[in-house]
Amino acid sequence: MAKKHILVVPGDGIGAEVTTVGKQVLEIIAQKFGHEFTYDEALIGHVAIEATGSPLPDETLTKMRAADAVLFGAVGHPKYDNDPSAKVRPEQGLLKMRKELGLYANLRPIKLFDELLDASSIKPEILRGADILFFRELTGDVYFGKRERLDEGNTAYDTMIYSKYEVERITRKAFEAARTRSKRLCSVDKANVLESSRLWREVVQAIAPEYPDVTVEHQFIDAAAMLLIKDPKRFDVVVTGNLFGDILTDEASQIAGSMGMLASASVGDNTGVYEPIHGSAHDITGKGVANPLASVLSVALMLDISFGLKAEAESVVKAVDNVLKAGYRTRDIANLTTPSDKVLGTEAMGNQLLSQLRA
Amino acid sequence: MAKKHILVVPGDGIGAEVTTVGKQVLEIIAQKFGHEFTYDEALIGHVAIEATGSPLPDETLTKMRAADAVLFGAVGHPKYDNDPSAKVRPEQGLLKMRKELGLYANLRPIKLFDELLDASSIKPEILRGADILFFRELTGDVYFGKRERLDEGNTAYDTMIYSKYEVERITRKAFEAARTRSKRLCSVDKANVLESSRLWREVVQAIAPEYPDVTVEHQFIDAAAMLLIKDPKRFDVVVTGNLFGDILTDEASQIAGSMGMLASASVGDNTGVYEPIHGSAHDITGKGVANPLASVLSVALMLDISFGLKAEAESVVKAVDNVLKAGYRTRDIANLTTPSDKVLGTEAMGNQLLSQLRA
Ligand SMILES: CC(C)[C@H](C(=O)O)[C@@H](O)C(=O)O
Ligand SMILES: CC(C)[C@H](C(=O)O)[C@@H](O)C(=O)O
Repeated sequence: MAKKHILVVPGDGIGAEVTTVGKQVLEIIAQKFGHEFTYDEALIGHVAIEATGSPLPDETLTKMRAADAVLFGAVGHPKYDNDPSAKVRPEQGLLKMRKELGLYANLRPIKLFDELLDASSIKPEILRGADILFFRELTGDVYFGKRERLDEGNTAYDTMIYSKYEVERITRKAFEAARTRSKRLCSVDKANVLESSRLWREVVQAIAPEYPDVTVEHQFIDAAAMLLIKDPKRFDVVVTGNLFGDILTDEASQIAGSMGMLASASVGDNTGVYEPIHGSAHDITGKGVANPLASVLSVALMLDISFGLKAEAESVVKAVDNVLKAGYRTRDIANLTTPSDKVLGTEAMGNQLLSQLRA
Repeated sequence: MAKKHILVVPGDGIGAEVTTVGKQVLEIIAQKFGHEFTYDEALIGHVAIEATGSPLPDETLTKMRAADAVLFGAVGHPKYDNDPSAKVRPEQGLLKMRKELGLYANLRPIKLFDELLDASSIKPEILRGADILFFRELTGDVYFGKRERLDEGNTAYDTMIYSKYEVERITRKAFEAARTRSKRLCSVDKANVLESSRLWREVVQAIAPEYPDVTVEHQFIDAAAMLLIKDPKRFDVVVTGNLFGDILTDEASQIAGSMGMLASASVGDNTGVYEPIHGSAHDITGKGVANPLASVLSVALMLDISFGLKAEAESVVKAVDNVLKAGYRTRDIANLTTPSDKVLGTEAMGNQLLSQLRA
């Protein structure tokens, strides 16, 4: 029996709707497998700014450090997007959390459920069998370098910066993962232009001999963005920096049919954080149509990676698979041939999933 | 009758193979329409380093300034890609050319020829009708900011930097183009994190009221990379920075079926430079299989943009269309149903094209 304390941090937009389902999954898993999971909740992002003035209140950070894992929703609000001059922004809470918890490795598995082969804009024959695991570095790069305005506000800069130890630790994690999979690692950079990318490439090249069983290739980010769509199966484990990882993994969501299916794990020195990659999606917030499966699959990653509960994790993935096999779809993964009574909202999809899990 | 002096700069890899065909197209156009085109040739990239020690010899730059337009091939060599510590690199020649000639606007039209609807990894029903014009800023951003090593080489940084006037001039070009098309402009940035992107967004927002007939939307780069594949038709004119533009336009090549079909125009204060976006492609160099059509379409852009010869430009595009309609394909755009006698190498494809043009 495992005893675990889980902090639920719904954040903004559809975050609350989808983490509600994620938490229900945890409750059923605890019952079914005889674990004791306790829960607490905390604020981040726009809702935290509204309540406390800060996008990451100290109380939230303290609770995060005390938890065994964090179930995270999303942050962001259109109000700030359209106001480039806002000083306090929801995303600052997210970035501070990543930095403070030392979440340097963001794992984003891209795997297509067979039933969704037709939900993508990419041809099924290109997609069938695609299975990519991204390691996105999460606490460095242009996200955390110095930025400022110069010249009375008429010039602005950000600093894209990496130190060797930062590249080393994420690269080793990626090599380790490649060993347990098809033994292919692709490192993505822009070493033909950027000095930080040349450092990145040097480090990957220096570590490679320690993993002689893994085949390494290097791709420039522009070529990688193209190849990912042209031939997703050529990739297995991919390691890249924070900014390039942000772009490539969102793009790769099309391989999985929809962003609404993609889970992620952010891990490092401390508590792991598990979240959908879809973001706050204010256009559909409150409408009850958000796909909860990315949050459910984030729970599966939590059970596996933070708690080492493999069978429990597998049962969650299996339940998702069964719900899809039974033909249920949220709007984002439905297509023209989906009967309308099988197109479900967030809650109804959650209920289907929970009954599969109970079975 | 137009009198024009054209500098041919084949550069590295398949550059020479494809610009040979591009130049032949110019020769036929001159004959057919009674123009007087004169030519010269110059070195850039790896071949220039080998010959002179410099990736952009002064002589090349002088010839470029004196020309009415430059027909460009590609730069790059795997030797440097695998040696992050090389001090002199082919790409430095390309970047210096862009800066010295003030080529701040890189136009990359993404248009699918009907005949290639099946050559893409994306479903035909998603692609049909897609037609995007990218304006990539080309002389700023992290390509030209300060970069260095710190901390005995253990840390490296690059500076992502924009000034208002740089954003203004490319944004205006994009708005002007949007006016002549479907009146939709999408600006891509990462303003939820980057200060340089917030400046970018501010400038676009400030200019928008001058073009009340154009609808503007802003997308974050991660979302844009996803939407481009999910629903390419939602985009018409796209304006973005140098790095994001590099990534998005390579990715967008999948919309046009192959990178081998995409032309670009780099324009600014001085001589315009016309080049395929495909790069040096050393894996196929010297094999005679490169697709020359991107170079041919670059010639069409040159005739149109630098020389104002619209009918001539159209006849080149028409010839490409006819060759495709006749069923001819290079390897990169062939598919399983292409009969093997219609799969042509660079020269044979060039000859088909030239005879279409002569007809
Ligand atoms: C919200 C935003 C700051 C964030 C990022 O860019 O990292 C998001 O896109 C993500 O990928 O988690
Ligand atoms: C070769 C390289 C430096 C160049 C760039 O990144 O600009 C190329 O990818 C391009 O798009 O023209």
